[in-house]
Amino acid sequence: MIDSTVAWIALGLACAPDGQTLRAIRERCASPMTILVNDAEGEGVDLLLPPPAREASLKQMAAARREAEGVRAIGGEVVGFGDARYPPLLREIGDPPAWISLLGDPGEADGAAVAIVGSRDASLAGEQRAFEWALWLARRGVAIVSGFARGIDAAAHRGALAGGGRTVAVLGCGPDVLYPRAHGVLRAQVLDAGGAILSEFPLGTRPARWTFPRRNRLISGLSHGVLVVQAQARSGTLITARCAGDQGREVWAVPGAPEDPRARGTNALLRQGARLVENPAEVLEDLVPWAGARQRDEGACAQAIADQSDEEKNLLAAMEHRPVDIDTLALRARLPVTAIAALLLGLELRGQVRRTEGMRFQRS
Amino acid sequence: MIDSTVAWIALGLACAPDGQTLRAIRERCASPMTILVNDAEGEGVDLLLPPPAREASLKQMAAARREAEGVRAIGGEVVGFGDARYPPLLREIGDPPAWISLLGDPGEADGAAVAIVGSRDASLAGEQRAFEWALWLARRGVAIVSGFARGIDAAAHRGALAGGGRTVAVLGCGPDVLYPRAHGVLRAQVLDAGGAILSEFPLGTRPARWTFPRRNRLISGLSHGVLVVQAQARSGTLITARCAGDQGREVWAVPGAPEDPRARGTNALLRQGARLVENPAEVLEDLVPWAGARQRDEGACAQAIADQSDEEKNLLAAMEHRPVDIDTLALRARLPVTAIAALLLGLELRGQVRRTEGMRFQRS
Repeated sequence: MIDSTVAWIALGLACAPDGQTLRAIRERCASPMTILVNDAEGEGVDLLLPPPAREASLKQMAAARREAEGVRAIGGEVVGFGDARYPPLLREIGDPPAWISLLGDPGEADGAAVAIVGSRDASLAGEQRAFEWALWLARRGVAIVSGFARGIDAAAHRGALAGGGRTVAVLGCGPDVLYPRAHGVLRAQVLDAGGAILSEFPLGTRPARWTFPRRNRLISGLSHGVLVVQAQARSGTLITARCAGDQGREVWAVPGAPEDPRARGTNALLRQGARLVENPAEVLEDLVPWAGARQRDEGACAQAIADQSDEEKNLLAAMEHRPVDIDTLALRARLPVTAIAALLLGLELRGQVRRTEGMRFQRS
Repeated sequence: MIDSTVAWIALGLACAPDGQTLRAIRERCASPMTILVNDAEGEGVDLLLPPPAREASLKQMAAARREAEGVRAIGGEVVGFGDARYPPLLREIGDPPAWISLLGDPGEADGAAVAIVGSRDASLAGEQRAFEWALWLARRGVAIVSGFARGIDAAAHRGALAGGGRTVAVLGCGPDVLYPRAHGVLRAQVLDAGGAILSEFPLGTRPARWTFPRRNRLISGLSHGVLVVQAQARSGTLITARCAGDQGREVWAVPGAPEDPRARGTNALLRQGARLVENPAEVLEDLVPWAGARQRDEGACAQAIADQSDEEKNLLAAMEHRPVDIDTLALRARLPVTAIAALLLGLELRGQVRRTEGMRFQRS
């Protein structure tokens, strides 16, 4: 059986057509199969691909079929550019892949999605920021997209998971390759929590110098905006931010002191016009136009921020008007430290709690 | 003897005329005495001050004479708005004082001047930044203006002194009042190094809530631009920055991490359009149009940055390609730690030295 998805794979393997061509094929003949098997109908349809590209694609049909079967064998599926499950945001970019491999759930088409990215070689403070901001946004229904790398990426995925939200990991290798090797558990957690692992590379593709920059355009392409929480001067993260700019997506950057080499990249983005953000609520604010059905419900967004859970009330009761460290609070409130951190962040953003030096907290 | 300066003082004490009136008086009759003693000549000269203001001023003549004598008695002098020594930059602002008390040297009229300001309650890192940037700019002939307060202000004055440059302290009290009390030595050092202490308040005026905001407009008024190196959300520093904006002066702000409450003020300034700077060379760059004769000499500015002193060469020779702390370097290079800090900053800015965590340094 020759199906439409296989034809999209073959096209991608053979000639990787640009977004304009992909969109034209999708609009005019629904499937590239129409062109490839040479029974093109309708005006100009056979002009969409030059004959050499068509021949090269036909030669890739067997490989394309093997690819689709191989991805199914690892529990995923291949999604072609014209398929219903292809992420709509990704379809809009200049250089979308003709097909992607997808494990898990790509999410609601109308949900808000934010990429949280940064350096592999992050500081503890940077990872904590990524974790807390991802958690905060995930709790409010925003999907967190990132690159599954060490450092900031992993912290962002983990924050989204801790917030009970959905996270999408875009790989710089084939969907069957585990990289970094230490992220086996994270991979399973992303899928278990209803998130997705996504790759545009064929099975068995090893991560390489050239795969990461390509991967980065998908991270921004799958998102309404890119939030750079920490990045050095020459970080791959800046490529993702540039892609976001080219794709007309928002770019948010968190400022940092000039003495901190890990802030050079975000400060450079601010010079280039990225939006300066100091807390995740500012990111959410910019997302309102795109926010999903839940957020569109008038006032729901503000309500989510204003709501005070019982847990928060318990925590406030356990706090004092002088600084107390987080471990003491965890003991008093009988909650794990990560839960405390999440609650404190919400309280801090609403001005009910103040953070002092050395990660100590007090009631305002 | 009734002199012109005394008349400017009397005017200021009686009715504090705005800049437009002050400039009109200066242009049309050289001295307010012409108006006050009622022998006004020339068209419209007697319209420059309404009769009640003229009468009130005449009543202040004795007090004005006492003020001038009192300031001379502490080694200073009063400078009236029309006097040659009145700082030309200050004359341009909307609300200049009719007179100032001046101890020391107000500096060359064509020299570049930068205000370095920030919170009283600064962190050690903030004070170090103020010190190092002031030192670097002072070495290149830029006068450093600040408010003589604890924290960032004092560090800026001290950095200018360490760089062998001139610094101007603008007081929020009378010129004879020592505030803060701990700054007696600093006051002497500023004057010994050829700098100036400046105040618009009468002798004996105590520092008060209302004096500091007024003082702030002079800090920006005496400068080509205001550099805010560290400031909290509700800092008086932000008033100085607002004055600078109103006066058409440059505003530079140093970014900081959102987790650092001492960066809230500078980040807020960046949102409002202040120029993001990460090192003092960027400030100097913006100053080139105003730079003094020394800087105007073509290429001298670039040369100053490119020049490598023997001290720097010795220090580089003492360094390694792995991080070494500053005390070890001081021992090896046989120089005091403050001198080492200054040299390292220059080398760092030229990319010959890299700073790593915990204030350790290595050759690039």
